Amino acid sequence: MAKQLSGAGLRGQVAGKTALSTVGKSGSGLTYRGYDVKELADKCQFEEVAHLILKGKLPNQQELDDYKAKLRSLRGLPTALKEVLERIPKDAHPMDVLRTGCSMLGNLETEESFDQQQDATDRMLACFPSIICYWYRFTHDGVKVDVETDDDTIGAHFLHLLHGEKPRELHEQVMNVSLILYAEHEFNASTFTARVCASTLSDMHSCVTGAIGSLRGPLHGGANEAAMDMIEKFDSPEHAEKEMMGMLERKEKIMGFGHAVYSDSDPRNEIIKQWSEKLSKDVGDTVLYPVSVRCEEVMWREKKLFCNADFFHASAYNFMGIPTKLFTPIFVMSRLTGWAAHVMEQRADNRIIRPSAEYTGEELRPVPAISER
Amino acid sequence: MAKQLSGAGLRGQVAGKTALSTVGKSGSGLTYRGYDVKELADKCQFEEVAHLILKGKLPNQQELDDYKAKLRSLRGLPTALKEVLERIPKDAHPMDVLRTGCSMLGNLETEESFDQQQDATDRMLACFPSIICYWYRFTHDGVKVDVETDDDTIGAHFLHLLHGEKPRELHEQVMNVSLILYAEHEFNASTFTARVCASTLSDMHSCVTGAIGSLRGPLHGGANEAAMDMIEKFDSPEHAEKEMMGMLERKEKIMGFGHAVYSDSDPRNEIIKQWSEKLSKDVGDTVLYPVSVRCEEVMWREKKLFCNADFFHASAYNFMGIPTKLFTPIFVMSRLTGWAAHVMEQRADNRIIRPSAEYTGEELRPVPAISER
Repeated sequence: MAKQLSGAGLRGQVAGKTALSTVGKSGSGLTYRGYDVKELADKCQFEEVAHLILKGKLPNQQELDDYKAKLRSLRGLPTALKEVLERIPKDAHPMDVLRTGCSMLGNLETEESFDQQQDATDRMLACFPSIICYWYRFTHDGVKVDVETDDDTIGAHFLHLLHGEKPRELHEQVMNVSLILYAEHEFNASTFTARVCASTLSDMHSCVTGAIGSLRGPLHGGANEAAMDMIEKFDSPEHAEKEMMGMLERKEKIMGFGHAVYSDSDPRNEIIKQWSEKLSKDVGDTVLYPVSVRCEEVMWREKKLFCNADFFHASAYNFMGIPTKLFTPIFVMSRLTGWAAHVMEQRADNRIIRPSAEYTGEELRPVPAISER
Repeated sequence: MAKQLSGAGLRGQVAGKTALSTVGKSGSGLTYRGYDVKELADKCQFEEVAHLILKGKLPNQQELDDYKAKLRSLRGLPTALKEVLERIPKDAHPMDVLRTGCSMLGNLETEESFDQQQDATDRMLACFPSIICYWYRFTHDGVKVDVETDDDTIGAHFLHLLHGEKPRELHEQVMNVSLILYAEHEFNASTFTARVCASTLSDMHSCVTGAIGSLRGPLHGGANEAAMDMIEKFDSPEHAEKEMMGMLERKEKIMGFGHAVYSDSDPRNEIIKQWSEKLSKDVGDTVLYPVSVRCEEVMWREKKLFCNADFFHASAYNFMGIPTKLFTPIFVMSRLTGWAAHVMEQRADNRIIRPSAEYTGEELRPVPAISER
């Protein structure tokens, strides 16, 4: 395959091989190891999908039971890690908290060899909800929550720690769908960060810590938070339409629409939109969901821009009582699956990732004495 | 420019523009903003070079004095950060300590807008020696060192904290040269990690935290530690030659030789080699330096492989009483300059770095019921 190199963002340039997913390939919007994400979200639990992505196959009942039992057993946090989280201020960026928690975990439970890569990953999958909720509840509610719950799933564990009670079945179900939708997305910037780090043969915690830092960026994660900040300002669909028309006129950036790879729709949108509607009815909402639908209509009518995965996630999370600033950390709990699987894939057939640069600077020149500068 | 895309490690593919350095360009081995690194190492302090790389010009005397005064004033550590470092075990990987310290700093002194990028960088330049030495002395010597010294330079600050006394002039001079040599090296894997992270418009601490994680990998940083582990086993040049011939015969990997970009020499080697020789004479060494020279001769004679920047750094650091496991953290204290400058450069003309992948996985297939797996 030969292409013109533009150098800008490596767009369209092949940086490696993957068997994990296809994004925007004709015939299906998003597949994980050959399965359509819509079918997975309809039929599977997140833990089945994590097993698929990380271990290469959908588990049978026994394998799924074993895997979930393993993940349940790994929810506790070491004392030193809790003490670190207690020292992070209430107003810190929750992604900085997770980045620091992951890095600290790497000090306490270092991946000493690649034989440990699956265990290190499972440990993070199990305890990232503990890390973020322990910090959140400690700094916001002044309580030291017991993070070792017996909830069936990762989604339920998270909601339980956050709200201090077992979640309703509907909410556990939506968390499950949400975690599936965000689990893997080929060579996006955070995953690519993890692969570049993995290519130096660094450890799993370094790779994931780096990926969290990249997902923190407003061009990557955080679009669902930005969407929430916008839609909660609108009182009605009419108000939303009026304000959005003004934003479009002023050429303001509106988050939650369009995508770097998908060209006419994001396959994840229709799924999360359905669940947002269900939650809206469940809570008796008459504003947020209709407002969101109107935003979608306006953006399509005016700009031919479609909702991406993030837009209806905003209202869905809000209906479940999740604070806006924890939206991107949920993305981490899910995407960790893809990051770790990409690290494993990179390690299995590695060459250090070391591109070239186009030099645009000064030609060779002598160093002037300090008195002559 | 059109090239075949191999996808393997992006070798030879242009991933962006830089005005910061040239590596292996004909006529000069390594330049920072047009100045030959050899001349910089001969005539400048590290702080001048940091000013050059970060701010685009060599400082005059007043600018240098001001910059050094600023850096001196930023050496202290917040209490919460010290408490975090005290909770990291003695046997942790020092790169994990720095990664965690940097990430924690990001919670306490978050870069809230890009206007703060120079200040955030200067703060890290000033306090990374404090972070690593505070942890090292606390866990190894049981003391809580006062990290706010009045030493003139970053190199002296580091040696002072490590040894508990002001360093001799010769040692400060060598640290200075070493920090200059490692400061910047184009799109190496850790710098590229920082740029990928920066391309999502994430914060400076996330970019640097990610870069530390990549430098930790044995294919990237750490070669000087591996070189030290090897040469300290040899009693004499003859012993070194015999053992190395055996290692070559057994096709064992020998660290500190060759380079991904340089083809016939690493311009940094001759500089650090001279300083290693000077230190060797100074301490009355009769083994380590002659052993190192013999290793260089054998590798060139047998494999036409030259010493890279890392090889004579091993003996040089050792002569100054620096524990081997702190070698790569010194690399961080220096390369931080390049990382931060690349982040600033990426931000100034950004497009999110999002390459493509070659899909090698399963074709679209239906999800089987769990009872049929």
